[in-house]
Formats: sequence, structure tokens, C-alpha cells
Amino acid sequence: QSNINSHESDILESLQGFKVEKILNENAQTKTMFVHGKFENSEDNAVVIVEKTAFSEKSIRGVLSGDTTMKNTLKNDIYGTYEVYPKPEFNEIKTTVIYPATEKHIAKYTGQPVYMVQETPELYSDITLPYLNAENFSIQWVYNILEKKKESERIIYEDSHPETGFILLPDMKWDQKQTDNLYLIAICHKRGIKSLRDLNSSHLPLLRNILTRGKKAIKDTFDVDGSQLRIYIHYQPSYYHFHVHFTHLKFDAPGSNAGRAHLLSDVIDNIELRNDFYQKKTLNFILRENEGLFKKFQESGKVLDSFS
Amino acid sequence: QSNINSHESDILESLQGFKVEKILNENAQTKTMFVHGKFENSEDNAVVIVEKTAFSEKSIRGVLSGDTTMKNTLKNDIYGTYEVYPKPEFNEIKTTVIYPATEKHIAKYTGQPVYMVQETPELYSDITLPYLNAENFSIQWVYNILEKKKESERIIYEDSHPETGFILLPDMKWDQKQTDNLYLIAICHKRGIKSLRDLNSSHLPLLRNILTRGKKAIKDTFDVDGSQLRIYIHYQPSYYHFHVHFTHLKFDAPGSNAGRAHLLSDVIDNIELRNDFYQKKTLNFILRENEGLFKKFQESGKVLDSFS
Repeated sequence: QSNINSHESDILESLQGFKVEKILNENAQTKTMFVHGKFENSEDNAVVIVEKTAFSEKSIRGVLSGDTTMKNTLKNDIYGTYEVYPKPEFNEIKTTVIYPATEKHIAKYTGQPVYMVQETPELYSDITLPYLNAENFSIQWVYNILEKKKESERIIYEDSHPETGFILLPDMKWDQKQTDNLYLIAICHKRGIKSLRDLNSSHLPLLRNILTRGKKAIKDTFDVDGSQLRIYIHYQPSYYHFHVHFTHLKFDAPGSNAGRAHLLSDVIDNIELRNDFYQKKTLNFILRENEGLFKKFQESGKVLDSFS
Repeated sequence: QSNINSHESDILESLQGFKVEKILNENAQTKTMFVHGKFENSEDNAVVIVEKTAFSEKSIRGVLSGDTTMKNTLKNDIYGTYEVYPKPEFNEIKTTVIYPATEKHIAKYTGQPVYMVQETPELYSDITLPYLNAENFSIQWVYNILEKKKESERIIYEDSHPETGFILLPDMKWDQKQTDNLYLIAICHKRGIKSLRDLNSSHLPLLRNILTRGKKAIKDTFDVDGSQLRIYIHYQPSYYHFHVHFTHLKFDAPGSNAGRAHLLSDVIDNIELRNDFYQKKTLNFILRENEGLFKKFQESGKVLDSFS
């Protein structure tokens, strides 16, 4: 007896019977929504992330065609606005389903007030590091990729050197239909580098290798020059195995802002300037109110400004 | 004899016979595209702007329903990604048609390639500085503000000290209707600081004063805490009189990305670490192909990567 939605390992064939429980968050600028819901006949939670896709050279011809129906909403001189309804095949939506989802997934995607935290080296060792050690976040899915147990068909480039090597593959957020929103991730083979905080001059060969060979692989594969890429590290990262983001400059990717993104070339320069730059530096980053790490900072009284 | 597309005052009933001539520009983040095209049997140009619409409470229930068809693209543990194709009525596209369009319309909507430029100290003195001196950009409008000849009614806060003082006022891009997209600018009274490149330890009192009093003025006036602000300097700036941007963390303001935005607190830290940090540092920034400074870098052969 098989219910297509009953097993976590199953691929969904339809959204029949899906019930929206709550809209967790939305972004009207990027046309994205985060939804908590359930499937019929299951008590498990699902988190569904839907995002409208960018137009491509191909899809635009299908949209602007006789197959499309349209409704006029305004007309003034040479300017007219319309609501247009293309055939579904030209107007897909990128969807990520996390199922079964835990309470942590739901919390992660729930819209929250955000705060800029100033993490001094002391606050890193007193708050952040103990928190990371206690939580012991699973990065099994990263090891699955590095060991070719998962997603090996998605690998764009690999340098297999254990100290300086990495695997380059498209980020889940990139649909690979056009290069304007190109988004790839380089995941290093070396284990144990949690984040920017751990980097010192011993990692310069790794960092330089990712910068140089990552750019070359992207040029060779997608014909996008290194000068059109934003290449950066997140701090805090979303997982604590060292990786680097490569996005197209035209694309203001989430997390490419000051306060989270650190350009890889700046990181290399700063470590060249001073071996322990990232152990000594106060690092600013943004945390959501419902994140565990934020609560730790809040308890220590290190978040809000006090002007009294 | 009527062709529905032949008169400028006509409302379009369909896109039958529309031919895409050229994609003028696109934004993969906002899912927008600017297209130059023509209608059958007409020599007139049309510019068509299409933008995917944000999800609504109503449309999301139509999208996540049994009416939607879907195709699996990836499955790893509890994570699955899909391309989903909802019924057209739940997936409209906002469309503006400019018809007939002039050459000026086409130029206005044509995008420019962007490049990341790596400005070493040598390239700053050989290319950027001579360019700035030769162009001699007018900043009279800034002096008008500082001298209260213009916009004095918009001032939120002023510290009139000639060395460490500044004027704080809303950026033109902020409508001041809600604080979620708060955007203010602090313009220093002291003249002659062109940009980040000029800053050294003699400016630390100015920088610390802008950081502290700017945050306090925003807290007092708008009840937004300093911990909810992104406070940064642009490099390159859009005008060469020193100023600081204050935006709400929730707002991904244009120019808040790595590659343009430098957090003021990082700038202070870096100068404390080393007096000449910003005179010695290679600075990365993004230029559009049609900008004068880009042409100077291009002539010097310092833009594209070479892997040959």
C-alpha cells in the first residue's frame, strides 16, 4: 500500500492534498515565499520554499507569444500595463520541499527581527564557539557530496588534493537556465575549518587555489569571466564546513551584503597582512531573533545599544 | 480595416505576432526583463517590461495544489527540489508595453555589463586619482546642504564641529513612510576627504563620532536601535565628499553588497590595526562598462582575468 507522500525518501509526484498551515516568511522583491504545510494523511510537517524563476532567452519568447492571454490594467498614451498569463511551461516556479521538516527547519524559515551582532574575539570564545560545540550541527550532507555519495552528477569541477582541493557545484538556489544569476559553491576537501574565524596563513594555498581554479572552471564551463563574479565567504556561515560562494555580479544574491559577505580576495589580503587577522578582528554579522546563537548573545547583554 | 496592434492608442488584446528583437536588460533577482521587439506588419519599435509577481496568500494556495504539475530535479535526504507548473491564473506576470517606443526608450532600458575591478594602491594613484582630478566632479550640492542653503528643513540631526561634526538627513530613496526601508546619510562638515582611500588614524574621532551620534539620533528620532542598522561607506562613492550610509538591516539597499559597502565599524577597526590600512589595501569595486572610470581601467588592461 503506497501513499506517494508517506516516505521521506520518496520523490513527490504531485501536490494533491497539500494544506498550507502558515506562511512563515515572504520576500516581495525576490518573489519568494516560505510555507509551512502538511500532506493529507500525514502528521509530519513540511516546509515548502517557492520562488518565481527569472526569465530566460527561451522562456521570454514563449511568454510574449500568441499563446499568452492578457488583461489590460492601464492605458496612457504610448504606455499600457497588462496582467499576462502565459502557458505553464513558460512560467515555472522553483520549489524546494523539506519533508519531513523539524521544528528547527520551521524556525529557520520563519521571518524574524534581525540584529547586527559585534563578535569580539572574546565573545567568539565565550559564546559562539561553545554554542557551536554544544549544538554539533550535522554536516553529513556535505560529506555525502565530498565522498560522491550524493550529487556527484552535479559536480562542475574537482581538485582532489586533500589540503588545497575542493569540489565546485551549483548552489541549490541556481536553476542553471541563465548565467545572470549564476551561483556556485566551492566546498573544500579539508575537514575541520569551521569558518572565517579559523583561517590563518596556513590556509592561504587553499584560499588562493579556490579563487584561481574556481574562476577558471567557471570561465571554462559557463563562459563567465572572473571579473564578473562576486566571490565571498559568509560569516556566520549556514554550515560549519569551509566553503566559498561564487555569484554573478548582476545578481544581488541573498547574503551578499556587508555584514555577512567577506570577499575572498579581501580575506587573502588581510591574512597576508597579519596571520591572525581573523582571530583578532571583531566580526559583525546579522542574526535573526529566533536563532539559538542570537539568544546566547542576548543573554549576555551584548546586542542592543545602550545610550542611557 | 483594423489591425489591433497598429494604433498607439489601442489596447492590446493579444501578443500574437510579437517578435523579440533584443533583450535589453534583465534582473534575475527581481525576475524582471526588458525586451525590444516589434509587432507583425509594423515597423514601429516596442519596449516590453515583464516582471514576475510576488506570491500572495491567495495565489500560494492555488500554486500548492493538485492542479499544479511538477518535475523532480534533485533529491538528497529530506530535501527535494522541483520545477512546478501551476495553472496560469495563479501565476500572472506584470507587463508594461511602450508602443511605439523611441530610441531613447530603448537606450534607457538597455543594461550595461558590470565588472569587479581590483584597485591596488598603484592603480589608485595611476588611474583613479588622476581621473577624479581631471573630471573634477561638482559637489556644490553637498556644500549647499552643509551651508544650509538647501534641504535644511530635511536635517534630522547636526553636530556642527568643523573636524568631527556632520549633518544627518534622509536619503532621497527613502519615502519615510515606514522604518523597514530606513535610509539616512551622514555628511561630514570637514572638506577634502574624498573617499575611503583617504582615511587614516587622524580621522578616527570623526568616524567614531558619526557612528555613535548617528545611531543615537536615529534611535531618538525613529526608534530604531543601532543593532538594527547597517552602517557603511561606499567605495567607489557616488560623490567625493566623505559620507556614511545608515540603512535598516531588513532592507537590502542597492550598494549594500560586498564589493561596494564597507562597514564603518570594520573601517575603524582596520585603521586602529594599521594607520595606513586604506592606503595599502587593494580595494575591489564594481563598475559599469559605460562609466568613465571603467574605460580608464580597461585601457590599462587591468580588468579581465587571463588564464592563457
